[in-house]
Amino acid sequence: MLLGSIEAGGTKFICAVGNEQYTVIDSITIPTTVPGDTLSQAVRFFEQYQDQGLSGIGISSFGPIEVRKSSSKYGYIIDTPKQGWSDVDFLGPFKKFNIPLYWTTDVNGSAYGEYVLSLIAQKPIQSLVYYTVGTGVGAGIYEDDHFLGAAGHPEAGHVYVKRHPDDLDFKGICPAHGDCLEGLVCGPTFEARLGMRGQDVPLDNPVWDIMAYYVAQAAIQSTLLIRPNVIIFGGGVISEPFLKLVRDHFKHLFKDYVTVGDLDSYLRMPLAKNNGSATIGNFALALYAINQAK
Amino acid sequence: MLLGSIEAGGTKFICAVGNEQYTVIDSITIPTTVPGDTLSQAVRFFEQYQDQGLSGIGISSFGPIEVRKSSSKYGYIIDTPKQGWSDVDFLGPFKKFNIPLYWTTDVNGSAYGEYVLSLIAQKPIQSLVYYTVGTGVGAGIYEDDHFLGAAGHPEAGHVYVKRHPDDLDFKGICPAHGDCLEGLVCGPTFEARLGMRGQDVPLDNPVWDIMAYYVAQAAIQSTLLIRPNVIIFGGGVISEPFLKLVRDHFKHLFKDYVTVGDLDSYLRMPLAKNNGSATIGNFALALYAINQAK
Repeated sequence: MLLGSIEAGGTKFICAVGNEQYTVIDSITIPTTVPGDTLSQAVRFFEQYQDQGLSGIGISSFGPIEVRKSSSKYGYIIDTPKQGWSDVDFLGPFKKFNIPLYWTTDVNGSAYGEYVLSLIAQKPIQSLVYYTVGTGVGAGIYEDDHFLGAAGHPEAGHVYVKRHPDDLDFKGICPAHGDCLEGLVCGPTFEARLGMRGQDVPLDNPVWDIMAYYVAQAAIQSTLLIRPNVIIFGGGVISEPFLKLVRDHFKHLFKDYVTVGDLDSYLRMPLAKNNGSATIGNFALALYAINQAK
Repeated sequence: MLLGSIEAGGTKFICAVGNEQYTVIDSITIPTTVPGDTLSQAVRFFEQYQDQGLSGIGISSFGPIEVRKSSSKYGYIIDTPKQGWSDVDFLGPFKKFNIPLYWTTDVNGSAYGEYVLSLIAQKPIQSLVYYTVGTGVGAGIYEDDHFLGAAGHPEAGHVYVKRHPDDLDFKGICPAHGDCLEGLVCGPTFEARLGMRGQDVPLDNPVWDIMAYYVAQAAIQSTLLIRPNVIIFGGGVISEPFLKLVRDHFKHLFKDYVTVGDLDSYLRMPLAKNNGSATIGNFALALYAINQAK
């Protein structure tokens, strides 16, 4: 039996086929252009495995997406700021495979991947928050055997935070909110603040410290609302040296208000390397959908 | 069968005895002074019903409290800012009744009370957040049939928020964090900002608008992290006119980013009158503990 994975990001789609041990057998990266093109390429990738035992696909997508099965728009990307992708029936083109599809958010896929890795390591995590800080900012929350979110999935990038005293003039770049968390710390803020790409900004540039101040507040919000066992950070902006700054601000701002244990373990990088959490999560969610359909 | 309730607040304890329809038969209000005195008075209240069928007590307390049954401090108030109440064995004196005790936070008791009322009204809420804004600020979250919080209970009063431009000079009064949410909007901030008690501050004083700006951000945080079906506000600072200001700020700051439905229903007062949610919740939690012990 083969399992499929689509990690649909605003910049690229990563499609993969793997086995029941979640080992990738084949994968392809497709640039996210217009829905017709991008989705067709993804479909063609999986067509190769249609007669080879492909039995289900886990799909985790950028959003906002419609995840309520009761909705007529279930499986759609809905009102997204991403040009051309609003009101797009994502699942539609994949229905022709006539196999179970699991549909969730990109960050839920990653959160689930990290949960699965904790199971494999025989250290199951009861409650985890997975933040991505990249082109956008979001979080997936898996706790007590379900994804959090009764009325829809979390959109944790669009919360407000206390502004850093050295950053009061920056208006933020979120088209909807200006200086919400995403508007202050997503990847494109480097261009907006400094006129250069994030990968070219040295770590001693004060902007990293400012961004860590905001990300630390997001971690505090999650800590105090969710009380998870761990908060994991992925996405292009995240690195171990950056997380060190985040931990410093967390410590300074949080004042040990509740016990979270060792900060190096509590606020950490994913176990999966190279932002691979989502692919593992999607394989496992495909398997879940297959078992549910039995 | 009689059910007991203790709503233990930083200012007063409300103890009650009720029947299985959650109707209050007797109640007493005890000022929160020193633990020995206050807890003894509560014990004496319930002693009257010991031979009358008192079968369990639901106790919801200010905190932070220890709710992990694996901890040797289970049933304790732990490191609280409330003078004299740190490291206090709350449950200890009630064990002599030899009946099931349910132990949770004050806001969880209220959250559960509102959940029970939704069940009684035959409109069960899948996921709800209950904020109290009073002497302190906190939230209880009940979703998918459990209280949220793997590593402990939420402490949602101590998040940071974006400061209101007309309030930048106020340093906040939280002993731990200064200008966290509680430090900016709890009841005693009226004295700190204006030198007068909250009940004496007319609603056209701009401080109400400033506080609503912060409470609206808390509601946005909950909305985007938890995606609940409703957010309920109780506590001494909350009134319907104040909530109207909160809704205005929510609308302005949130920009309809995800669908929450009609704001008058989404951000609302408790169904229980006079902050009575906790007593109903505690009765129901007492019954739950009794059934669990069977």
